[in-house]
Amino acid sequence: MPEFAKRMTTMAESAKVIRNLFGAMNDPDLISLGGGAPAPEALPVEAVREILDDVMRREARGPEVLQYGSVMGLPDLRKVVVEDLLGPKGIQADLEEIMIINGGLEAMNLVCQLYIEPGDVILVESPTFVQSVEIFEMFQARCIGVDMDDDGMILEDLRKKIQIHHPKMIYVIPTFQNPSGRTLSLDRRRELAAIGSDKDIIILEDDPYRDIRYSGPELPPVKTFDRTGHTILANSFSKIFSPGSRLGYIYASGTIMAKLFDAKTATNSHTANLPQVVCAEFFKRGYYQPHHQMICDLYRERRDTMVAAIDEWFPEGTRRVYPHGGLFTWVELPEGINTTALLEEAVGRPEVKVAFVAGEGFFVEGGGKGNNAMRISFGSVPPERIREGIRRLGGLIQEKMK
Amino acid sequence: MPEFAKRMTTMAESAKVIRNLFGAMNDPDLISLGGGAPAPEALPVEAVREILDDVMRREARGPEVLQYGSVMGLPDLRKVVVEDLLGPKGIQADLEEIMIINGGLEAMNLVCQLYIEPGDVILVESPTFVQSVEIFEMFQARCIGVDMDDDGMILEDLRKKIQIHHPKMIYVIPTFQNPSGRTLSLDRRRELAAIGSDKDIIILEDDPYRDIRYSGPELPPVKTFDRTGHTILANSFSKIFSPGSRLGYIYASGTIMAKLFDAKTATNSHTANLPQVVCAEFFKRGYYQPHHQMICDLYRERRDTMVAAIDEWFPEGTRRVYPHGGLFTWVELPEGINTTALLEEAVGRPEVKVAFVAGEGFFVEGGGKGNNAMRISFGSVPPERIREGIRRLGGLIQEKMK
Repeated sequence: MPEFAKRMTTMAESAKVIRNLFGAMNDPDLISLGGGAPAPEALPVEAVREILDDVMRREARGPEVLQYGSVMGLPDLRKVVVEDLLGPKGIQADLEEIMIINGGLEAMNLVCQLYIEPGDVILVESPTFVQSVEIFEMFQARCIGVDMDDDGMILEDLRKKIQIHHPKMIYVIPTFQNPSGRTLSLDRRRELAAIGSDKDIIILEDDPYRDIRYSGPELPPVKTFDRTGHTILANSFSKIFSPGSRLGYIYASGTIMAKLFDAKTATNSHTANLPQVVCAEFFKRGYYQPHHQMICDLYRERRDTMVAAIDEWFPEGTRRVYPHGGLFTWVELPEGINTTALLEEAVGRPEVKVAFVAGEGFFVEGGGKGNNAMRISFGSVPPERIREGIRRLGGLIQEKMK
Repeated sequence: MPEFAKRMTTMAESAKVIRNLFGAMNDPDLISLGGGAPAPEALPVEAVREILDDVMRREARGPEVLQYGSVMGLPDLRKVVVEDLLGPKGIQADLEEIMIINGGLEAMNLVCQLYIEPGDVILVESPTFVQSVEIFEMFQARCIGVDMDDDGMILEDLRKKIQIHHPKMIYVIPTFQNPSGRTLSLDRRRELAAIGSDKDIIILEDDPYRDIRYSGPELPPVKTFDRTGHTILANSFSKIFSPGSRLGYIYASGTIMAKLFDAKTATNSHTANLPQVVCAEFFKRGYYQPHHQMICDLYRERRDTMVAAIDEWFPEGTRRVYPHGGLFTWVELPEGINTTALLEEAVGRPEVKVAFVAGEGFFVEGGGKGNNAMRISFGSVPPERIREGIRRLGGLIQEKMK
């Protein structure tokens, strides 16, 4: 057989770690603090049922739904993005600057198609979202990590790495970052946009968690401060509507959008119509506001439970992030505890049976960086299971420290 | 701004020709024989309405539909592919060899991710489907055309070009080819699969029209003759179910499928759930058989009308393909008539107002090849409009010949 292309062999091994967890996650006894999926209770099942019934029966929109659609996406849904999602954040986007895509992840793919040549450098947060790294590596980009603190990417380190590596792109998840739960501060947002403009670097802002903020003050997207069109904003409907609908959007300047049109056409013609119609109606009928309130209340309670449980049961010397939104927190255990080894025991031992994601895989640097860290999700787990899971996990960690 | 990647500038100009037609196609007076969309009457609107109602209300499958789904696709729909679509054609596929994708086009994209390095050669039919060429060029492949006759790709020319260009892949649309409507003969199918195995070349078989055959004997896919796993079969639900649902599938060996799993994960996680559930139910409830019969009857009548009209109104010396299925035919006018120039007049002159697709853009060779050819679609146009369109177009061509 012909050899696979180089991009396939450089795909991040780390992504496989997450995938391997999927098997164990089907065990009903396991308390999974590993996945990143929204809570089943946070899915608007009843609204979707009603909308589908209406759209297909009363409004008879079947022919429109089943025929070819628009490359840019359903105009109604693009309008939702402009008026309901970006407008209230103080962003005046034009309808022509919005494209509906097949889940948030497709943005990384399309933007790479536009800009990335083999060998190009992309600066990413350290730690960062492994599936994006996997895409970047598929395009044979070199990913270099930039250090973070509790205010997100450290700009001194960013500047240093720009000087050394001359990146084509900076990839940032500014709000309730995956995996760390951290949020980029206001000053750094402003400065990051300016760095993109000054140094002629694309800023790819991936912001799927921003709309599920349940405490702390709202922060504007990096894109708000972009005066030159260097920042491209990607977002997803997975966390605020439904992940199974595979819907996301890109907000970019007209010049970039014209090329994105070509790339999207070539990739898959357009995003499926039916999920777009349903999602647009979900907003148009005013269902989003109360739904949003409901999921924020749900996740806030889980975050509070999680943080309290970690403080109660994890050993002294543990550092944890307090996320003001999103679905997970990030824990650094005292040095010497290897979370990759810990995970195996935590999943395998019948009196523990708790899953999380080990930290190492989120660092492109490798070399054991983050080997005492872990991403712990609380989004899809009821509070009493969160407490029980953290109690068991804390017990195992305490045992390891003896 | 940073420069766009090379792949974006090598994108086929030809694809833009088709896109530019989209504007004119909204004129209700225009008879469009240009598009490749199925007939509105061929969309199973009522069945989909009923299924959606049932799935969401009686079966309460909302939570499954809205949550994350499987990378490989909905098991029910993969079973439909194995049992309802491939089984009856004599193909014994394993469930693990089938992946559901986001429209047929995504197959070209995913397979290129697996195999294509910049500079690799892909042999394509001459003429061929421009959107696939656009994808191949996005991966910086070099596309080389192989001559065709009425039995499809000419294997002598294929062998010659293999020897000269050492291709990584051969791209073939064996049944009712886009744009020519031609079908690869049985002997050539067998031989093509053997060439892939012998010369260690991937055969990418793109077969979206095969299931709408309305005359002539059924032919097995090239993949049927593949003994080594070199052939990858791609197909689409766009022509037999609904294009707006963006559903297709890939049938490939286990080794290739494992890599496709990685590529699909990185590209967009999985295909949207709702269209998959609806499409699977469409087959499971036995709606496909009568629907298939109905659309075949519909398209057969249009094909017959189209062929008769061309024979009546086009000038002597015209050559046309008689397609046993699919949505279009291919016409070569007498030398000296340039169809690109003709198209502009045909669309622009108020007493004509007929659109088709000029032939030139379908040839990767360029240099004026196919400049007297045209793709004429009959799929989405009622018979009386087909007759009227061809009468007007024939008149214009006769005028040009004076």
